[in-house]
Amino acid sequence: MNHLTLNEYVARLSDVLNSINLLNWDASTGMPDAASRRRGLQVATLNTLAQQLLLSADFAAALAHDKKQPGLTLQQRNAHRALDEAIVWHKKIPAELMATQAHLTSVAEVVWREARAKNDFAAFKPYLEKIVELKRRVADAVGYENHPYEALMHEYEPGLKLPALQGLFEQLQSRLIPLARAVHAAPKPDNHFLFRHYPEAQQRQLSTHLATRIGYDFTRGKLDTTTHPFEISMSRDDVRITTRFNPHFINAGLFGTLHEAGHGMYEQNVDPALSDTALTLDLTGLYAVAGASFGLHESQSRLWENRIGRSLTFWQHHFSLLQSTFPGVLEDIDVGQFYRAINRSEPSAIRVEADELTYDFHIMLRVELEIGLIDGSVRVDDLPGLWSEKLQHYLGIPAPDDSHGVLQDIHWSKGMMGSFPTYTLGNVMGAQFMATALQSSPDIQKAINRADYQPLREWLTAQIYQHGRTFQPGELLQRVTGSALDAGPYLGYLEQKYRALYPSV
Amino acid sequence: MNHLTLNEYVARLSDVLNSINLLNWDASTGMPDAASRRRGLQVATLNTLAQQLLLSADFAAALAHDKKQPGLTLQQRNAHRALDEAIVWHKKIPAELMATQAHLTSVAEVVWREARAKNDFAAFKPYLEKIVELKRRVADAVGYENHPYEALMHEYEPGLKLPALQGLFEQLQSRLIPLARAVHAAPKPDNHFLFRHYPEAQQRQLSTHLATRIGYDFTRGKLDTTTHPFEISMSRDDVRITTRFNPHFINAGLFGTLHEAGHGMYEQNVDPALSDTALTLDLTGLYAVAGASFGLHESQSRLWENRIGRSLTFWQHHFSLLQSTFPGVLEDIDVGQFYRAINRSEPSAIRVEADELTYDFHIMLRVELEIGLIDGSVRVDDLPGLWSEKLQHYLGIPAPDDSHGVLQDIHWSKGMMGSFPTYTLGNVMGAQFMATALQSSPDIQKAINRADYQPLREWLTAQIYQHGRTFQPGELLQRVTGSALDAGPYLGYLEQKYRALYPSV
Repeated sequence: MNHLTLNEYVARLSDVLNSINLLNWDASTGMPDAASRRRGLQVATLNTLAQQLLLSADFAAALAHDKKQPGLTLQQRNAHRALDEAIVWHKKIPAELMATQAHLTSVAEVVWREARAKNDFAAFKPYLEKIVELKRRVADAVGYENHPYEALMHEYEPGLKLPALQGLFEQLQSRLIPLARAVHAAPKPDNHFLFRHYPEAQQRQLSTHLATRIGYDFTRGKLDTTTHPFEISMSRDDVRITTRFNPHFINAGLFGTLHEAGHGMYEQNVDPALSDTALTLDLTGLYAVAGASFGLHESQSRLWENRIGRSLTFWQHHFSLLQSTFPGVLEDIDVGQFYRAINRSEPSAIRVEADELTYDFHIMLRVELEIGLIDGSVRVDDLPGLWSEKLQHYLGIPAPDDSHGVLQDIHWSKGMMGSFPTYTLGNVMGAQFMATALQSSPDIQKAINRADYQPLREWLTAQIYQHGRTFQPGELLQRVTGSALDAGPYLGYLEQKYRALYPSV
Repeated sequence: MNHLTLNEYVARLSDVLNSINLLNWDASTGMPDAASRRRGLQVATLNTLAQQLLLSADFAAALAHDKKQPGLTLQQRNAHRALDEAIVWHKKIPAELMATQAHLTSVAEVVWREARAKNDFAAFKPYLEKIVELKRRVADAVGYENHPYEALMHEYEPGLKLPALQGLFEQLQSRLIPLARAVHAAPKPDNHFLFRHYPEAQQRQLSTHLATRIGYDFTRGKLDTTTHPFEISMSRDDVRITTRFNPHFINAGLFGTLHEAGHGMYEQNVDPALSDTALTLDLTGLYAVAGASFGLHESQSRLWENRIGRSLTFWQHHFSLLQSTFPGVLEDIDVGQFYRAINRSEPSAIRVEADELTYDFHIMLRVELEIGLIDGSVRVDDLPGLWSEKLQHYLGIPAPDDSHGVLQDIHWSKGMMGSFPTYTLGNVMGAQFMATALQSSPDIQKAINRADYQPLREWLTAQIYQHGRTFQPGELLQRVTGSALDAGPYLGYLEQKYRALYPSV
């Protein structure tokens, strides 16, 4: 590596991280199962090379040199800041700790899969204990302001402090708990027709059409099917999404596609000038992603899935296409019935199947347990009991068993502690952005009302997408909405929507 | 990179090179076209990192240390030899030359594609001139014994000398030219039924079945469709093949699949102990491949495609499956007619469509031109005229135009000069191996006669596949057959086959 410029070094880093994304995409979409072990090692090798590049003396010299240029732009200065912070962060974590984590989590994920299949928490327990211990050491190594949990959240939502998160949760609980109780006491709308026969080929056709309508660009993307849907990009011009088609449940593939298309539109609309720079890389997580944080990303997937895709006006335009795509299947159903069915709320044990009204309770439950695990006030042993208690508290139901309780999510087995808050942050920030967008121009809502999503997309691009990771999530939220995290718009949206759906509430 | 062992360094190199294979596989199978430019840069970056790793001081120290171990095995010593040679080879080529080649060929390939589409040799000519000039500089940098062409061939067939190749070509010409003339003067067997309607889904089913029958392992592989079929591996447990199904020509997908499955079986049957060592890497070409050379690889793809897949005994067993796979399509045809049709020979302008009897003429033509280009006796300007002359000489037909003549192959645009001989080497060596196999045990032919390909596959695995790149191609040929390159078995096979097919000859 002889005297490259900073931009050249960062472009190399970007190429390596985007290659890791392809290795991971392929592992989920078509790789033979037999190749899993070696693929894990291939990802680990590229990850090591990326970290070595970032921490090399040549890289540091190029960064120092780049900082001395006259007339640095805001983007250049923010890129320098991101690089400085990441280098400090990576240097704080001993290599031995990273290696242990990589090895432990690769084994733990396999153990977790088997434990979940067999409803055997005891089998996973010793691994989870080691992971918790390891995350505590990571937190101690990188440091924090108020609580070790902040150090873990930093990997997913840089800058977020625990008091701010807890304040947000309290704000949500005070209004969501009574709203959910009232809704769940009311008669449930019929939704049996969502479980009729929807052949996969037609579902794919419909999902492709609707994703295109909202603005996902298939000339720079691709839709595949996987067990667990996701979005990942190999460059701004190669942003792929996946979904899962269930021939006996229309929601999974349909709203799954709109959700991932929302993620995809964020990545596809970053300023091309930022491609392969530090402002389209998560340098802490060593992950090629243009979105500003996990929470910001989730704000966009949920905005397009829920605010647009689960709205009455959306289906007033597209329900007839849905009907004609599946001849005879929905001819006895009208758009009002369909809208009420796809928004039916009920307490359930599984996070990924939860409706808009109950989703955040699943997050609060997990985050409370994670905080306790990391500060030592909760022991791994206590998890199944606490899980049931909290599910009862928030949703009034017991956990069916550990497979459908404490073992349901992959996150902990992969060492992803501290990422759950970003789902709720996404809901909250999405509503703040939407409120700002609608206030900024009456044309945006008018266009949505005639199924034209371009003005909203252009506003989001100008305000959010184009900037990539130029701003930290808190900075970006403040810039766009003039406000810090605030659950008000989200609560207002949910209350209005569910009171209209359930007139007795 | 702190004090890894040689094995650990080489495993990293292997991971990077296998990741490049995935980047290339993906670019042909599903990547959005818009991503091409960045994908090229991603491959170039990983290639640079691989070369830096191979040439680093740490790597050299680990290699020196590894050599000092007591009791080195033959495999370890051969791995050291391969690493030493590759390091010397890469150090001889100035970095500037490699960078120029990478840039020039990435542009030239795009220009070539357009030139071929427009039948515009003049557009490609300046690029080809630069490529020839560059390959001459590469040859001068790495050195050669008799002729600069040897330096180019070394990348594909290490150790091959020009006099040996020219001797082989003369041996072939002396018997193939009269044989082909006689065959082409005889009445042609009917083959119109090969162009009936063969729906893609059933073709896929049939190809999958037959590839499995000969021994390609789908649990460690995958069949996709691409414009240009190929085989590539991401590890011993992830060896993928592609084919192209033409609904109006059964041969393309069927024999294409058997050909690539032959390549795949080579990679799938290397000794697992050699995985991710220097003996499953082409260190000169920086390409993850377990086969000993391009020629050795081609010997296996052609053996399974032609010696097995185009034999009468193969179709005596499988023709009824072919008939039942496409109900009604071939009910008026018997296995003898089918066998004669798939082996019909005729002069044609396009190499990749050529039959067994004429294929090598296409190679000789190209190799003669490449030799002339590299030693300066042929100018790029002269190519279209010489192409026509040589096509007339070998096949008795004129070149239809430059698109179907000098512009038909991608190789030169990619800087792959010196690789064409390996196709004919594959034919010749494959016949030498087959003759040795059949002599070594009568059970092999008996098993083939009852559609049991396991004894042949096991013999090939024991003699060739398991060794990966432990031996140089010439060494391996000598070890297995007791002979150097010898066209005798190949000529004997072709003469016997075509005299039986064309009784008037």
